Amino acid sequence: MNAESCAALLREHDRFLIVTHYNPDGDTAASAAALCSGLRRLGKTAYLYPNPQIGSRLRAYVGRFEAPADYAPDYTVAVDVATERMFPRGFSGKVDLAIDHHPTNSHYASAEYIDAERAACGEIVLKLLRALNGDVTKEEADLLYIALSTDCGCFLYANTDAHAHRTAAELLDLGADVPEINDRFFRRVTRGRLELEGMIYSGLRFYRGGEVVVNIITQEMLKKSGVAEEELDDIAGLVGRAGGHRVGVTIRENPDGTSKVSMRSGPDFDSSALCARFGGGGHRMAAGCNIPRPPEEACGELLRAIGEVLA
Amino acid sequence: MNAESCAALLREHDRFLIVTHYNPDGDTAASAAALCSGLRRLGKTAYLYPNPQIGSRLRAYVGRFEAPADYAPDYTVAVDVATERMFPRGFSGKVDLAIDHHPTNSHYASAEYIDAERAACGEIVLKLLRALNGDVTKEEADLLYIALSTDCGCFLYANTDAHAHRTAAELLDLGADVPEINDRFFRRVTRGRLELEGMIYSGLRFYRGGEVVVNIITQEMLKKSGVAEEELDDIAGLVGRAGGHRVGVTIRENPDGTSKVSMRSGPDFDSSALCARFGGGGHRMAAGCNIPRPPEEACGELLRAIGEVLA
Repeated sequence: MNAESCAALLREHDRFLIVTHYNPDGDTAASAAALCSGLRRLGKTAYLYPNPQIGSRLRAYVGRFEAPADYAPDYTVAVDVATERMFPRGFSGKVDLAIDHHPTNSHYASAEYIDAERAACGEIVLKLLRALNGDVTKEEADLLYIALSTDCGCFLYANTDAHAHRTAAELLDLGADVPEINDRFFRRVTRGRLELEGMIYSGLRFYRGGEVVVNIITQEMLKKSGVAEEELDDIAGLVGRAGGHRVGVTIRENPDGTSKVSMRSGPDFDSSALCARFGGGGHRMAAGCNIPRPPEEACGELLRAIGEVLA
Repeated sequence: MNAESCAALLREHDRFLIVTHYNPDGDTAASAAALCSGLRRLGKTAYLYPNPQIGSRLRAYVGRFEAPADYAPDYTVAVDVATERMFPRGFSGKVDLAIDHHPTNSHYASAEYIDAERAACGEIVLKLLRALNGDVTKEEADLLYIALSTDCGCFLYANTDAHAHRTAAELLDLGADVPEINDRFFRRVTRGRLELEGMIYSGLRFYRGGEVVVNIITQEMLKKSGVAEEELDDIAGLVGRAGGHRVGVTIRENPDGTSKVSMRSGPDFDSSALCARFGGGGHRMAAGCNIPRPPEEACGELLRAIGEVLA
């Protein structure tokens, strides 16, 4: 479908539930909330699935759209959900319409509006709202700017294209409060997070002349800094700042002493294949695995495996 | 003047020298280089003033435009220079044309193309190249993306407007290598810089319940991390990440043991007035001063003065 046919389909239905993905990010949550707002402006009943994993920073923007416990929907829409595995529990086989930008969308819904050319799903929802409502409110522009900017790292990530910048310009014209959103999502962090970053940057380990960078985050570091889970935003990306590295590894100690591994690399190293050796997976440049050993041992095993590939 | 009349004026002249400002940033250096490229494509002789303060990261892009020692120009153009005080030595009274975006431009040149609405001078030069050459090369697009993105903090700073995003889109369409430039200017840093940030974040001091944040950078920290001056990019901005603060102070110990102070604040605190008490100055939200005492003593004096204002 395109924006117009998708809008026509939405107009035929009512009592919407809009579903975000597991481990929700700004794009899924804020795009879903913007669509919810647009549907309500048409006089429809529409709510977001109250995804329990949405953090306080996003909840401040999307919380008011969340469904009450007894809500019985007639039509379910998934926003920014690539596969059924990415759904929160209980939605498998129950989604009527998928609105998505993932090229890997597994076609779980009977109706689809997918545009894999877009950096963020928010760009698709902006086009949809224009078709559905004709206009876009300031609140919807805020939400769609959150969706877009978080998915492209405030226009720093390599997925940022000319269309993303033009969408940002359009959202600014529509009144999005960009300075406030940028401050909240990309600049200001808690004191605990700054303390944790101090420990991380002081403890970074460089191997093979800096080709491999390892960041170990222990339970002790987490306790000492007192950070909550939602303050750990993009913590696996910090190793990516090390100039000249080829592989960046973040090893987080779980409360039970085992290790959760995130790996980031340039296109010349297959993180996914390396993590698969440890039962994990992901993408070529961003993958992960769990290693049932303490971080120091996991680090040794990973370095041996990475060394074999780089040798 | 507008872009067309400025282009007409440039066509009348030859043997250009293009001057960047003291303590050059990406906007002055890369905008000047893009203009130099455009003039050369018209068959003109054009060089940049070899500003000795340009760091290696920028020099990689602009170095090839720098004038040889014996170059004798006929027409001098200043790019992104607000006042005569901002010139390197020897240019006072010698500039024929000013191309600038500062609302505070002091009208030092007989001809001016100033557009104070633009976030970066690079946006003005893009318009000028369209008028001058009709087209824009990939290399010029790279340079103008450096100019724009560095002046608006990769679209994070509050000066980022819809026009800046539309310019970025245009430069992407023109072939600017945005992922590479973003990596070089906003992501990858040296190992020394990461070590220094570890020390900084670990040593941040919070006063008045977090209203005031102080970052003290000692000579010992600089020596231990081994960073060069050009690796200290935006180091005074790090305190701005502390959520809930009103005033952020960075105190850098000079080699002679005295203190160089940078102050950043929200609009509700006048950093400029506070720094003026110590013989310094600047803008309301970003100011500085020198205090001829060691950092710890300077910190005490500043905290007393800030406390009086906040009380």
